[in-house]
Amino acid sequence: MGELDLQQFNVAIDLALEAKEQAESGGSGPIPGVLMDTTEDDGMTITRLEITNEEGSAALNKMIGHYVTFEVPDLRKQDTNLQDRVATRFAQEFAGFLERVGIGKAANVLIVGLGNWNVTPDALGPLVVENSLVTRHYYELMPDQVAPGYRCVSAVAPGVLGVTGIESSDIVQGIIDRSKPDLIIAIDALASKSLDRVNTTIQIADTGVHPGSGIGNKRRGLTKEILGIPVIAIGVPTVVYASTIVNNTIELMRNHIKAQNGNTDHIFGLINQMPENERLQLVREALGPLGHDLLVTPKEIDQFIEDIANVVASGLNAALHEAVDKSNVAAYTH
Amino acid sequence: MGELDLQQFNVAIDLALEAKEQAESGGSGPIPGVLMDTTEDDGMTITRLEITNEEGSAALNKMIGHYVTFEVPDLRKQDTNLQDRVATRFAQEFAGFLERVGIGKAANVLIVGLGNWNVTPDALGPLVVENSLVTRHYYELMPDQVAPGYRCVSAVAPGVLGVTGIESSDIVQGIIDRSKPDLIIAIDALASKSLDRVNTTIQIADTGVHPGSGIGNKRRGLTKEILGIPVIAIGVPTVVYASTIVNNTIELMRNHIKAQNGNTDHIFGLINQMPENERLQLVREALGPLGHDLLVTPKEIDQFIEDIANVVASGLNAALHEAVDKSNVAAYTH
Amino acid sequence: MGELDLQQFNVAIDLALEAKEQAESGGSGPIPGVLMDTTEDDGMTITRLEITNEEGSAALNKMIGHYVTFEVPDLRKQDTNLQDRVATRFAQEFAGFLERVGIGKAANVLIVGLGNWNVTPDALGPLVVENSLVTRHYYELMPDQVAPGYRCVSAVAPGVLGVTGIESSDIVQGIIDRSKPDLIIAIDALASKSLDRVNTTIQIADTGVHPGSGIGNKRRGLTKEILGIPVIAIGVPTVVYASTIVNNTIELMRNHIKAQNGNTDHIFGLINQMPENERLQLVREALGPLGHDLLVTPKEIDQFIEDIANVVASGLNAALHEAVDKSNVAAYTH
Amino acid sequence: MGELDLQQFNVAIDLALEAKEQAESGGSGPIPGVLMDTTEDDGMTITRLEITNEEGSAALNKMIGHYVTFEVPDLRKQDTNLQDRVATRFAQEFAGFLERVGIGKAANVLIVGLGNWNVTPDALGPLVVENSLVTRHYYELMPDQVAPGYRCVSAVAPGVLGVTGIESSDIVQGIIDRSKPDLIIAIDALASKSLDRVNTTIQIADTGVHPGSGIGNKRRGLTKEILGIPVIAIGVPTVVYASTIVNNTIELMRNHIKAQNGNTDHIFGLINQMPENERLQLVREALGPLGHDLLVTPKEIDQFIEDIANVVASGLNAALHEAVDKSNVAAYTH
Repeated sequence: MGELDLQQFNVAIDLALEAKEQAESGGSGPIPGVLMDTTEDDGMTITRLEITNEEGSAALNKMIGHYVTFEVPDLRKQDTNLQDRVATRFAQEFAGFLERVGIGKAANVLIVGLGNWNVTPDALGPLVVENSLVTRHYYELMPDQVAPGYRCVSAVAPGVLGVTGIESSDIVQGIIDRSKPDLIIAIDALASKSLDRVNTTIQIADTGVHPGSGIGNKRRGLTKEILGIPVIAIGVPTVVYASTIVNNTIELMRNHIKAQNGNTDHIFGLINQMPENERLQLVREALGPLGHDLLVTPKEIDQFIEDIANVVASGLNAALHEAVDKSNVAAYTH
Repeated sequence: MGELDLQQFNVAIDLALEAKEQAESGGSGPIPGVLMDTTEDDGMTITRLEITNEEGSAALNKMIGHYVTFEVPDLRKQDTNLQDRVATRFAQEFAGFLERVGIGKAANVLIVGLGNWNVTPDALGPLVVENSLVTRHYYELMPDQVAPGYRCVSAVAPGVLGVTGIESSDIVQGIIDRSKPDLIIAIDALASKSLDRVNTTIQIADTGVHPGSGIGNKRRGLTKEILGIPVIAIGVPTVVYASTIVNNTIELMRNHIKAQNGNTDHIFGLINQMPENERLQLVREALGPLGHDLLVTPKEIDQFIEDIANVVASGLNAALHEAVDKSNVAAYTH
Repeated sequence: MGELDLQQFNVAIDLALEAKEQAESGGSGPIPGVLMDTTEDDGMTITRLEITNEEGSAALNKMIGHYVTFEVPDLRKQDTNLQDRVATRFAQEFAGFLERVGIGKAANVLIVGLGNWNVTPDALGPLVVENSLVTRHYYELMPDQVAPGYRCVSAVAPGVLGVTGIESSDIVQGIIDRSKPDLIIAIDALASKSLDRVNTTIQIADTGVHPGSGIGNKRRGLTKEILGIPVIAIGVPTVVYASTIVNNTIELMRNHIKAQNGNTDHIFGLINQMPENERLQLVREALGPLGHDLLVTPKEIDQFIEDIANVVASGLNAALHEAVDKSNVAAYTH
Repeated sequence: MGELDLQQFNVAIDLALEAKEQAESGGSGPIPGVLMDTTEDDGMTITRLEITNEEGSAALNKMIGHYVTFEVPDLRKQDTNLQDRVATRFAQEFAGFLERVGIGKAANVLIVGLGNWNVTPDALGPLVVENSLVTRHYYELMPDQVAPGYRCVSAVAPGVLGVTGIESSDIVQGIIDRSKPDLIIAIDALASKSLDRVNTTIQIADTGVHPGSGIGNKRRGLTKEILGIPVIAIGVPTVVYASTIVNNTIELMRNHIKAQNGNTDHIFGLINQMPENERLQLVREALGPLGHDLLVTPKEIDQFIEDIANVVASGLNAALHEAVDKSNVAAYTH
């Protein structure tokens, strides 16, 4: 049978924050059409970024829209208390995000867990689905008896193209046609540019999920244009390309040497002045023929993915259902 | 919130063979409208049963249609060679079944793995989906290069109502609308009447999946009437109600005593003459208030379910794709 | 190779409470040498039972010693709050038990998780080991820096005879020789006589683990006589024999009929007067030839075993380490 | 409590082949005291390397002894046929290795699966234990009936220090004292220097397992000196440090540029002439403060580890038991 490369080349930068860092690395100051606001809160850095026009969009190569990023470096430390605090804060921020982008409290939500439950770093979506508090069947089967404070929520894990033979977006479209939600919340595992963001960062965006983003093999996106209803994407970087680790580390080495007042031209030769994309190209050429340019994930991924899926699911449950106790969001997942 | 009992009471007998045994237990000879033919083959008993008219349907309380049952008592013994032989025989029988019920060699197939991948005895469907050889994406993306001998196959695991909040049949209907298959093959874990059939029996039927059958919580079925295309169901009993074990065992005790020329009236009193349904009712009343009437599964279910999912997936892959080597069907799953 | 039946016939009744119920079913009043005290506490029934002499031991066919049983019927309902309350109460009771049987606060503990981590209903022991707070390596490698309030604890999962080829008790003896604990706490999955105790009951006993108890294949026990140090056993019934379900249910049916003033002799014939052991024998004969007498477990065992392992591990961590917050015992496991 | 860094710094190079490559990278020709012989066989490269004296040992910083390495680049491609061929060849080579290092056909073997079954890339050892054909209990319990062609084999997974609180080597020593094997075969997941060796390489060595090798946290080794009986180690690289990927890739970039007749001094500046260790030091300094220097593993590790554990277990079963059919080694695992 003909060969079909499902592991398509991933050119997109999934995190808006990383796109902005990269765009700014040229050094010409603030980018027009990009607003940003950062809060530090007890071990978390929360960044609200908005791309307001085409100029900002072009500069970052990201869609116009709202982005919120949680950076929690200690999220890999298996600290249950920290996880609870992040989930609680995430719930508040997500509720605010819904309001900001105009989603009402009664909107009927379909949570879509993208990814493959048999590939640990790609299992984030299905794990969140499992831990989501779904209520749609109560609304359908005994609407009189649904307690106040619960929104109508359903959740599916459509699987990946290599397992199903069907595009996730086609499956989701079919389910939307039947179940008529007002909003999609799509959960996806992402690729990061730097290893320290892996399993420590959560991004919320109202721009949907685009082809080639995430670590699965999507050829069509999940966006309002395609599906007809708004799509909020929640992404967590869980993998990084070997080539990206290398390229990123050369950058860190240059900064490290500069910080020690070293002469980076002297030490790095031409590499020092090479534009980042060109350098990445060189790295890929060197790795390519040997098949070294794998997507990699931390050794402890089993624990990390379970922890962060719990944070996201707990946060979502509290944000979507008013009846869920916001001060103890974790009690509703296991 | 109102209580919704998703674990609805299961009145249907899932296996046609068991329905026939029960119908015959009255003892009035062959049942009109029911044809049956049994083959013994090297440790397997293969029964082809056809319900040809309403009379047979009413007698068995099963739909008019074709049923094939594999009974392989040693399938719980972890014998790899036996598993390979069953998969090979299953492939032949399934290919013949497709022909018999008028499905052509070019029919585009959607495999639907019903059940919950987090509940081991209910994970049969999702496990078969994982091990299915899907090709639809090749047909969609590079149709010129699909090698001969491969049919267009896709596969989804829609999840269960308690996890998704959406009926499986609605999800499947939505996917059918988008992906346009000609035939559904639905895989489902069933409840059996007797413990010795659990994980040793496979049933094929062209009657679809009906509400209340299987061990999940289906309120609408997957049938040709509902979905508009033929539905072949593959079912494996993986659980049994405690009450059914008891009722079934009392029957075995009566037979055991009769075989020893004992006086069953003397030994069993009124129980001996009680009709089966009435006796089952008594058992349930006794178990009920204490919450004892659980669905149970053998202790070794983890291994059993993996073995039988491999048999079914291997068999399906060989039956659906002519290019798969029929003499070594197991090489295409893992 | 010769056949070795590792699934040996299980004659022992694992729960002292069940042994007492059975001994009393003859109906001749309190049993000499057996003291019992029962507390009801917010959904839990806690029974302290002591067998004080040979007469009591013979009557119950259980060793002289202390037994505590937690019965929590709702423990299968996935109620996180209840689980936390049980863990907290278990911690208090276990701490009291240690004191009562003369184990000091400084005693060095080895937790032994019996069972097979690949067989879900037998995975209780290994799951508790995973979630135990071990400290022995800190004591060995940096004794000056161990914070106050932490006892020296280690934990192993020795595996089962069918996987290792070595008796668990030999492996544990070897580890004791090397690591010199003062006390063994052995965690084991048990077989119950009644389905309603499965995954709802926890037994603590200072009598160790005896050959043929539990659901693995132990041919030598873990007792003070064999190992030279005290052994406290924590057991949870996770399986039940099909034959026991039947026999137990016939008993329930008789009680049910008596409660309605029915004539049980009339309804049950000779069965009504048959001693329990004889009736069980009859059930086994009826089930036997067909291989029906399996050990079975509830369909939802994956979730049940995880929940109860967390309760036991959380309780143990709080009972063994004074520094663990007794009011929030669950925070130390995941 | 004091902090104990169980993830100790890993200075050792686990693969002898990589040590030799590194030692030779200075370029001064063959290394005295090191013999090497390489065979290509249908997609596998098999290298027999022997360190014969102290000079060779010092040059490679590896123990005197025998090393055999299987390199199979396509082992990550989920090709069942290739896996079977590798297992078969591994069985032959391992049987020859046993002979070469003087282990008799009747030697009683204890397989030790090092690592943590809950951390996928570290689960190789426990997975091999699960799939090993153990017989020791037959020898103990019914010696007359053991069929010819089966060696006495047992297998344990002692767990890791962070979970048990006891050194693996202490646990193993205790088990040896009780079960009296003649030989240890220790299975361990290793760290590699290059990403392309991860899950594609298997090393056999008669030098045992040394502290700081492997990816767990061993502080004492498993060697003949410590345990009193020979120890053959089977290692598979399953992880790689981020810093090693970077350092290794810079080397690949230099080679890539040289191959294109580029001036590496010009392009790389001082980096070009930096000794490898110094460059690695620089990489680690740059990564260090940000916690980037994680051990990483390929995204597909779940499947890779299962496949390679099956290859090793199948190969061992065939090598250790003459009765196992050498032409179909895979039939004995699942």
